[in-house]
Amino acid sequence: MAGNAPTGFRVELGERDPLVLDAGQKLGPFTMAYQTYGALNADKSNAVLVCHALTGDQFVLGKNPYTGRDGWWPLMIGPGLPLDTDRYFIICSNVLGGCMGTVGPKELDPKTGKPYGLGFPFITIADMVRAQAMLVDHLGIDQLFCVIGGSMGGMQVLEWAVSYPERVFTAVPIACATYHSAQNIAFHEVGRQAIFADPDWRGGSYLAEDTKPRRGLAVARMAAHITYLSEAALHEKFGRRLQHREQLIYDLEDLFAVESYLRHQGEAFVERFDANSYVYITRAMDYFDLAARHGGKLAEVFKDTKTRFCVISFTGDWLYPTSDNREIVRALNAVAANVSFVEVKSDKGHDAFLLNEPVMFDTLRGFLNGAARRRGLIR
Amino acid sequence: MAGNAPTGFRVELGERDPLVLDAGQKLGPFTMAYQTYGALNADKSNAVLVCHALTGDQFVLGKNPYTGRDGWWPLMIGPGLPLDTDRYFIICSNVLGGCMGTVGPKELDPKTGKPYGLGFPFITIADMVRAQAMLVDHLGIDQLFCVIGGSMGGMQVLEWAVSYPERVFTAVPIACATYHSAQNIAFHEVGRQAIFADPDWRGGSYLAEDTKPRRGLAVARMAAHITYLSEAALHEKFGRRLQHREQLIYDLEDLFAVESYLRHQGEAFVERFDANSYVYITRAMDYFDLAARHGGKLAEVFKDTKTRFCVISFTGDWLYPTSDNREIVRALNAVAANVSFVEVKSDKGHDAFLLNEPVMFDTLRGFLNGAARRRGLIR
Repeated sequence: MAGNAPTGFRVELGERDPLVLDAGQKLGPFTMAYQTYGALNADKSNAVLVCHALTGDQFVLGKNPYTGRDGWWPLMIGPGLPLDTDRYFIICSNVLGGCMGTVGPKELDPKTGKPYGLGFPFITIADMVRAQAMLVDHLGIDQLFCVIGGSMGGMQVLEWAVSYPERVFTAVPIACATYHSAQNIAFHEVGRQAIFADPDWRGGSYLAEDTKPRRGLAVARMAAHITYLSEAALHEKFGRRLQHREQLIYDLEDLFAVESYLRHQGEAFVERFDANSYVYITRAMDYFDLAARHGGKLAEVFKDTKTRFCVISFTGDWLYPTSDNREIVRALNAVAANVSFVEVKSDKGHDAFLLNEPVMFDTLRGFLNGAARRRGLIR
Repeated sequence: MAGNAPTGFRVELGERDPLVLDAGQKLGPFTMAYQTYGALNADKSNAVLVCHALTGDQFVLGKNPYTGRDGWWPLMIGPGLPLDTDRYFIICSNVLGGCMGTVGPKELDPKTGKPYGLGFPFITIADMVRAQAMLVDHLGIDQLFCVIGGSMGGMQVLEWAVSYPERVFTAVPIACATYHSAQNIAFHEVGRQAIFADPDWRGGSYLAEDTKPRRGLAVARMAAHITYLSEAALHEKFGRRLQHREQLIYDLEDLFAVESYLRHQGEAFVERFDANSYVYITRAMDYFDLAARHGGKLAEVFKDTKTRFCVISFTGDWLYPTSDNREIVRALNAVAANVSFVEVKSDKGHDAFLLNEPVMFDTLRGFLNGAARRRGLIR
C-alpha cells in the first residue's frame, strides 16, 4: 500500500479473486481508498473499522484533501476520545460506489477508458462490506476489535456482524435500521428523480460529456438534508428568521434563513459529491433488508453470535427512529446476544451521531473500555 | 353571476374597489372562480365557506371539469353529511393565485395579453381571504355560518376569524398552524428549487413559450407528497413491496411499489396544476404568521372574538402536528374564547382530513349542530 499525501492510501484489490457482487458481476482489480489513524498493535487485535454514511468518506480526521474541509468525526476519534487513537488502529475506507478514490461510477472503466457512469454495476450494502473485508484481509487483520458507524455506516456494521460474525469482536450500529423503510425509500427516490430530471445528467454520462447535473443534485441534497435534522432543530436554528432582511419581501429571493441554509447546503454538496455515486449508494441503501436476505426472520440472522453489540439511537431522529433501532435490540435479545442499548435524548435529529452528544460518547467509552479489557487491550 | 357548465361559476371582482395586496399592488378587476352547493336561505344565515388546501380547488363535490376527477371532500359535504347540503349553502372558491379559474400566474395579464408568469403579484393568505370576502360580499352574505378548511385551508380559516371576526359565526381550522414552521418552509423551498431547476420553467414564462416544467413540478410534488402521509401509512400501504416484480432487480427502473406510487403522483399532478401557482401559493403559506402580523402576541389576535371555534388535529400528522394546532387552542383559551379541540387518533398522516375519519366527522357534526341551533338553523 502506498501513502499519498493528497489522497491518502489506495490499494488495488480483487486482482486474483474478484469481488462477486450481489447483482452477479465480478469486480476486480478495483481501487479502494482508505485512511488509517493510530498504530496497529503486534497481534493485530486493536483495529477498528469505521463505516461512513451516505455522503461521508474515509477522512474522519484532519483535512479532507478533496474538499479542504475538516474530517467528519473529530469528536469521536482521537487521543483520549472514545475511539482513542492512542489505543486503537482506526481504519476508514471510502465505500464501494463512492467518489473519494474507491471505485465508483465516476472512475474510469478500464474497458472503455471513459467514466463508468451507468455502466457501473449496481451494488448493495453487503457488497460494500465484502470490499471492506478484502481491505481488512490486505491489512493482515483477522478480527476487528470494533466495527462502528452511523446511518448507512450502521447498516454496514450490521452486515459485518451477520456476514463475518467471527471477525467482529464488537459492533456499534448507531441511528440505523435492519431495513430501509418505505418513507426512506421515498425520500431517496425524490433525490434520484431530481438528478434524472436535470438535463445535464445526460443519462448518467455527464462526466464523459464534461458537465454535471448541478441543480438536480443540489435539489436532491436539499430534500435529504431536511431529513437529517429534526423539526425542533430547524425551529431552534432558524425558526422564521429572515436572511439579511428586516422585513418580508415579495419576490423569489431567499427570504428565510432556512432557505438560504438549504440552498447553501445544496450548492456545497455539488462541489464535493458525484451525482451517480448518489444514485448508486441510495439504491444500495434501499435494497438493504437484513432479514429478507437471510430467510425473513431477523433473530435468525444473529443466531449464535459472539459479537458484543452496542446499539445507539436518538429521540429526535425521525429518519431512523428509536423504534427501528429497537428492532435490532429485540432480535439480538431473542438469541440471548450480548447487547446494550441506549436511546440518547437529543433534539438534533438524525445527524446527532455526528455532533456533540455527551451521552453517546460516555456510552461508547464505557462499552469500548469494557470490551477492550476483555480483549486484553487494557491491562 | 353566471353559471357555466364546464368551469362552474365565475365572477369579476374589484372593478370599483380593487383588492389591495399585502405586497402593495392593487388587483382589479379580477376573476374569481367558485362553486356552490345547497341553497342560501332567506336571511342568508346558512352559508359555509370551505377553504381549500395548497393543491385543492373549488370542486369539493362532483366532477372537476378541469381534471375529470371526483371532488375532494365527498365524505364531508352532502345530504346528511356533517356539512349537510340540505341545511347549508356551501361556497368554495379557487384561491387567489390558483389555476382553476381564479386569477393566478397562468391567466392572461390584461396589460400584456400574455400569461402573467412571474409578473403576477406576490400574494399572502390574508390576500386570499380578502378576495374571498369580496366574493361573499358579492353574494350578499353578511355573516358566514362557518368557515372551514384543512391545511392551508385552515390557515385561511384563522385569517378569516382574525380579519373579519364579526363575519364568522363558527370557525373550523383543521390540521394547521398559526405560522409556517422552518421545516415546512424548507420542504416548500425544495419544491420551488426543483421547479426553478427545470430548464423548461424558462424563468417562469414557460406558458408564453408553450412548454411546461413537467419534471421539476413532478419532483416538487413527490417531495411534498411524502409529507402528506405518515411513516406508518407508507409502511402499511407499501412497506418494501416490489412493483410488478418477484425479486430485486439491479437497474434504475421503479423497483419498489412506493417508488411507482410517487412517480405516478408526480406525473398526475403535472397534468392538473400550474408550476407558477405552486410557487406563488407555497410562498403565501411561508409568509403566514398570524401573531407576527398582529403585533407578536398570538392571544391578542383573537381578543374579544365571539366566533365559536372547533380545532381538529391528527396524531399521525407530522407536517402540522398536534402541538401546532394546540397553540391555536391555547391562544383562544387565553382570551376565554369558545373553543373545542379534538386530536383524532389516526396514522394516515396530514392528509387524514381528506379521508374517512369517523371521529372527525362525529366531532364536526356535534359542533355544527350545536352552533346551528344557536343560529336558528335547527328549530
